[in-house]
Amino acid sequence: MIVVMKAGATEDEVGAVIGRIKDLGFTPHVSQGVERCVIGCIGDERTKPRLQSLEAMAGVENVVPILKPYKLASRQVKMTRTVLNVDGVQIGGDHVVVAAGPCSVETREQVMETAVAVQSSGAKLLRGGAFKPRSSPYSFQGMGEDGLKLLVEAKAVTGLPIVTEVMAPEDVDLVASHADVLQIGTRNAQNFPLLKRVGKSTKPVFLKRGMASTIQEFLMAAEYILTEGNPNVILCERGIRTFETATRFTLDLSAVPVLKEESHLPVFVDPSHSSGHWRYVAPMALAAIAAGADGLLVEVHPRPAEALCDGPQALKPDTFQAMMDSLVKVAEAIGRKAL
Amino acid sequence: MIVVMKAGATEDEVGAVIGRIKDLGFTPHVSQGVERCVIGCIGDERTKPRLQSLEAMAGVENVVPILKPYKLASRQVKMTRTVLNVDGVQIGGDHVVVAAGPCSVETREQVMETAVAVQSSGAKLLRGGAFKPRSSPYSFQGMGEDGLKLLVEAKAVTGLPIVTEVMAPEDVDLVASHADVLQIGTRNAQNFPLLKRVGKSTKPVFLKRGMASTIQEFLMAAEYILTEGNPNVILCERGIRTFETATRFTLDLSAVPVLKEESHLPVFVDPSHSSGHWRYVAPMALAAIAAGADGLLVEVHPRPAEALCDGPQALKPDTFQAMMDSLVKVAEAIGRKAL
Amino acid sequence: MIVVMKAGATEDEVGAVIGRIKDLGFTPHVSQGVERCVIGCIGDERTKPRLQSLEAMAGVENVVPILKPYKLASRQVKMTRTVLNVDGVQIGGDHVVVAAGPCSVETREQVMETAVAVQSSGAKLLRGGAFKPRSSPYSFQGMGEDGLKLLVEAKAVTGLPIVTEVMAPEDVDLVASHADVLQIGTRNAQNFPLLKRVGKSTKPVFLKRGMASTIQEFLMAAEYILTEGNPNVILCERGIRTFETATRFTLDLSAVPVLKEESHLPVFVDPSHSSGHWRYVAPMALAAIAAGADGLLVEVHPRPAEALCDGPQALKPDTFQAMMDSLVKVAEAIGRKAL
Amino acid sequence: MIVVMKAGATEDEVGAVIGRIKDLGFTPHVSQGVERCVIGCIGDERTKPRLQSLEAMAGVENVVPILKPYKLASRQVKMTRTVLNVDGVQIGGDHVVVAAGPCSVETREQVMETAVAVQSSGAKLLRGGAFKPRSSPYSFQGMGEDGLKLLVEAKAVTGLPIVTEVMAPEDVDLVASHADVLQIGTRNAQNFPLLKRVGKSTKPVFLKRGMASTIQEFLMAAEYILTEGNPNVILCERGIRTFETATRFTLDLSAVPVLKEESHLPVFVDPSHSSGHWRYVAPMALAAIAAGADGLLVEVHPRPAEALCDGPQALKPDTFQAMMDSLVKVAEAIGRKAL
Repeated sequence: MIVVMKAGATEDEVGAVIGRIKDLGFTPHVSQGVERCVIGCIGDERTKPRLQSLEAMAGVENVVPILKPYKLASRQVKMTRTVLNVDGVQIGGDHVVVAAGPCSVETREQVMETAVAVQSSGAKLLRGGAFKPRSSPYSFQGMGEDGLKLLVEAKAVTGLPIVTEVMAPEDVDLVASHADVLQIGTRNAQNFPLLKRVGKSTKPVFLKRGMASTIQEFLMAAEYILTEGNPNVILCERGIRTFETATRFTLDLSAVPVLKEESHLPVFVDPSHSSGHWRYVAPMALAAIAAGADGLLVEVHPRPAEALCDGPQALKPDTFQAMMDSLVKVAEAIGRKAL
Repeated sequence: MIVVMKAGATEDEVGAVIGRIKDLGFTPHVSQGVERCVIGCIGDERTKPRLQSLEAMAGVENVVPILKPYKLASRQVKMTRTVLNVDGVQIGGDHVVVAAGPCSVETREQVMETAVAVQSSGAKLLRGGAFKPRSSPYSFQGMGEDGLKLLVEAKAVTGLPIVTEVMAPEDVDLVASHADVLQIGTRNAQNFPLLKRVGKSTKPVFLKRGMASTIQEFLMAAEYILTEGNPNVILCERGIRTFETATRFTLDLSAVPVLKEESHLPVFVDPSHSSGHWRYVAPMALAAIAAGADGLLVEVHPRPAEALCDGPQALKPDTFQAMMDSLVKVAEAIGRKAL
Repeated sequence: MIVVMKAGATEDEVGAVIGRIKDLGFTPHVSQGVERCVIGCIGDERTKPRLQSLEAMAGVENVVPILKPYKLASRQVKMTRTVLNVDGVQIGGDHVVVAAGPCSVETREQVMETAVAVQSSGAKLLRGGAFKPRSSPYSFQGMGEDGLKLLVEAKAVTGLPIVTEVMAPEDVDLVASHADVLQIGTRNAQNFPLLKRVGKSTKPVFLKRGMASTIQEFLMAAEYILTEGNPNVILCERGIRTFETATRFTLDLSAVPVLKEESHLPVFVDPSHSSGHWRYVAPMALAAIAAGADGLLVEVHPRPAEALCDGPQALKPDTFQAMMDSLVKVAEAIGRKAL
Repeated sequence: MIVVMKAGATEDEVGAVIGRIKDLGFTPHVSQGVERCVIGCIGDERTKPRLQSLEAMAGVENVVPILKPYKLASRQVKMTRTVLNVDGVQIGGDHVVVAAGPCSVETREQVMETAVAVQSSGAKLLRGGAFKPRSSPYSFQGMGEDGLKLLVEAKAVTGLPIVTEVMAPEDVDLVASHADVLQIGTRNAQNFPLLKRVGKSTKPVFLKRGMASTIQEFLMAAEYILTEGNPNVILCERGIRTFETATRFTLDLSAVPVLKEESHLPVFVDPSHSSGHWRYVAPMALAAIAAGADGLLVEVHPRPAEALCDGPQALKPDTFQAMMDSLVKVAEAIGRKAL
């Protein structure tokens, strides 16, 4: 870190800061500018994040971090890209992978019909929510364990591994006993007890970016999982909160190349929740792949107008098929495969 | 809700929408404009939130909600203001109430020293974190149960009721057995299993606004607690995420009169986390009271530069005293009391 | 518009609102719900935008617009896509078009070298700033008229039509006498005197989205130009202001399909200013085309480290060439041409 | 500035950066950390802002500014607070000053009635728009010069100096010949030709913060005016764009103490435009004064429901009087005067 002293900071104030830097186990390095004194703190600021408290000392203007705060998620620690194997499906390799299915599991018929349809169009994973975070307590809250069982039935028929959300630490074992990938939703992106708990699981974790998380905070959420011992994390950009209301969230596709630059973890994009309207899903899906994403999470429902959750953003099987047809071509254009 | 049809919607499309509205238990009311057909849906859209799925039907432009989605939190259901009694301290009444204390409980000495100081300056509640949500897994994570015990010791000495955070459903009983008020942090503002769990507690809940929550979503989070049977909710504005970086968050003080207009629940403001710098805490504390807030949550630490958490935003006991001196006068200016 | 009355609105209040609606030239249409009275206003709310003032009347909860406020920019008024001809270059047709060049015109050598390079890589338009909006008065402010002359020289050599910014109404004639396309920058997105002035020009206008403009406000800015009689407007998404700081702005690529749905005007994307780092320009350029953009505005500089403006985001001629190679393939993948 | 080199930067890359720093007129100061090399650039980075282009050099991770980019607006250059005299009204002194009046000048009767009313309640300046920036070309665009004349008539009767907006450089002389204070609106906050032009005027400038401007950019906009020779700038916070829609903008009251800390210029707050609803204006006005603002800009209209512009946010004369009554007490509570 760099400690920037105020313009009129006294020698005593500078001395006190230097003393404190040493106390915290860092080596100070003073640089006197034309107007201000700047003190570099040499040492690993990530594992000892207490330097920030120097800002409370007299004469200090502010404290500027130099190193990124993540380690295990960074490419400095792991240069090669992480490729996960989810029941035979490679995630983060040459093939872009599409996970598709309904927002929420509603009935056996609905799950089966959707699973068969998305598989035949080229999806490699089945998504579907049994535990649903809903902003209203009056909305459908998901089928819970019964929903998990329907997903397992759908996997038995189609062979598609299951991605499904877990919302509370005490549900991790239950969900992990049915699912192949544990999804953490945007509203739990900084639910640290939950992140620690899935970090202790052996199942891969599909981590959505918080709608208010910076990319740095997003990687720190991944770091929580990685430091607990689970190296299998998939990052997913799904839209952030901005002033724009024409779409439900603003899909931050620039996050894709930034995450690829900063981290070795695979990067997915969810074009459904960000858009909020099915009409915008396919263009954003293609854009995500062109930007370098390793895969997509897409909502598909056989009868969107009857969906218990997020119907307006669901593709029907035929529009999903059309999207996949284009996706194959865009993936090839950038030297990857989609099927 | 209002269903707005597209300019060229056919009679069949309008008919299908009308049929679906009836199926969902609402009464349609058609209004033909110069350019578009608009269909009102008469019925209580809050308890049956499925109308939104009509947006997926052919010919529908969009679906516009008319009623606010919260009921129990609204002033329509409860006209009188809610006043809570926390161990003898009235919250939401004529007196504005200050909860003060350290960001995190660090040592017995630190907690005692702070508790005695804030009490002598006029604080009525003691705040302090034993379970700490930190964006880095390398940061101090709180003392846990040992921290709760130190807070209880401080209460024994000062008599100040305790406000402290609970982060996971499985910790609610433990925290409730020590604390007087259960705090839900901004990162758990849409952690619905946690909200439901504290909704089953008999202890008052201090609910912080999510840094990306709209005021409507904030009230829906309160609604989750209220629908579980716990009527004792205190709302707390603590800053939202915006593009401005001069402060840690942007304190949305306009939320105070809006929440007072929309809801009967007491409204607090946290000027410490929003500012991120102790220098801006006192002005924002005074502003919050002038805007009509019922109380404040303020961080105080005897030696901020040594704090394990958020030192830069902590007031020292003497600056806290100065803030309280001004607060008494501002409260009087708007016809309330602060001591 | 829809006027939503408060729950307890009196008959007199409803009557007063109905009277006022008639006074303003609309036909009221009353609908009594279970809880509230809702009054539709039948008539063209776009050309008479005064209904909003009804919100100030007693008993009114709020006023909800139903129609989009733009007319000439909308697809309702013009169903076919607008294709512009800029000195022989078709904008908005089957070919995607790349405008490339330096952020600012600095020297004859720099402009010539860049113009020749981008042309040989497939750019169809030359961009370059002579009048520069800089956030600091101490930064290079552009060469002004001398810069315009250098652009004309570059056009004489390469044949590339010129896109360059105009910042003030009094400069429109000067800039129009040299340039082929008048660019309006993001900071002037709601500079209405300037929009009206270029609306009176016969030159096409390249209109950048304001960094804080909603898509609706963006189209209203276009509407200002269109209502003055200039039908030749190119819309350009260039990143909006959000809380994310890893990129300079957040490129809102979802705006591309939304603008294509709402408007008949061509849509470009500027991946340079949004990213702020050259490394992220090519992925976002490919993503923009995959999302359906009609063209790109890209910054290229032969020696970015010596640039007087925005060096970090400039591509070098060789990285620009590599981007164009990929662009050709992505354009083909979605059924368009890039060369 | 501080240049942070990448982890694996070579000696040659470090050498090239050092050379370039010297070429640009700065003194490099190298500091080798455990992982990275960091190079301080000693010299005044404000007047030579080209260091940022170093980010384009090989081996450079990023360039971190240390000094704030404003000089003349800063308290480092001018330690004492600026107090302006507007026709006998002191701005920025012990008295808080209220400028009030209609959003737009509509009729003689309306202006006169409002001017007399606000004066009798204690306003010291009359506000009113003759040139109106409206997001729709179909909305009332203001009375122009005729409106200016009505304001002058109102001043003749009440003695209240006039604050009114100027939107284009070519109108500055006209507006300055009628008005006492030239207002720059939020949409022109980075209209640099306009800022330079009013910087050449001798009239005080009332500068509104851009709805997407950081506090730093806001002060740089003031710097544009100051560097042209006009030292009389009043800063005005008026709400920024965020995701919250319950209010029209989010009033960033924290900007008040930040601006007071960073700058010597007077700071006003506009609680009308930020709120968008008259009901929230008074609480935010009181909060602004409690936060330390030097004055307010408030919209008052005798018949808001008939206003041609922004009726919903206008106070009526009686609610304005009530606000002023409270304001006097809050100002006293913090040791200032309001009348």
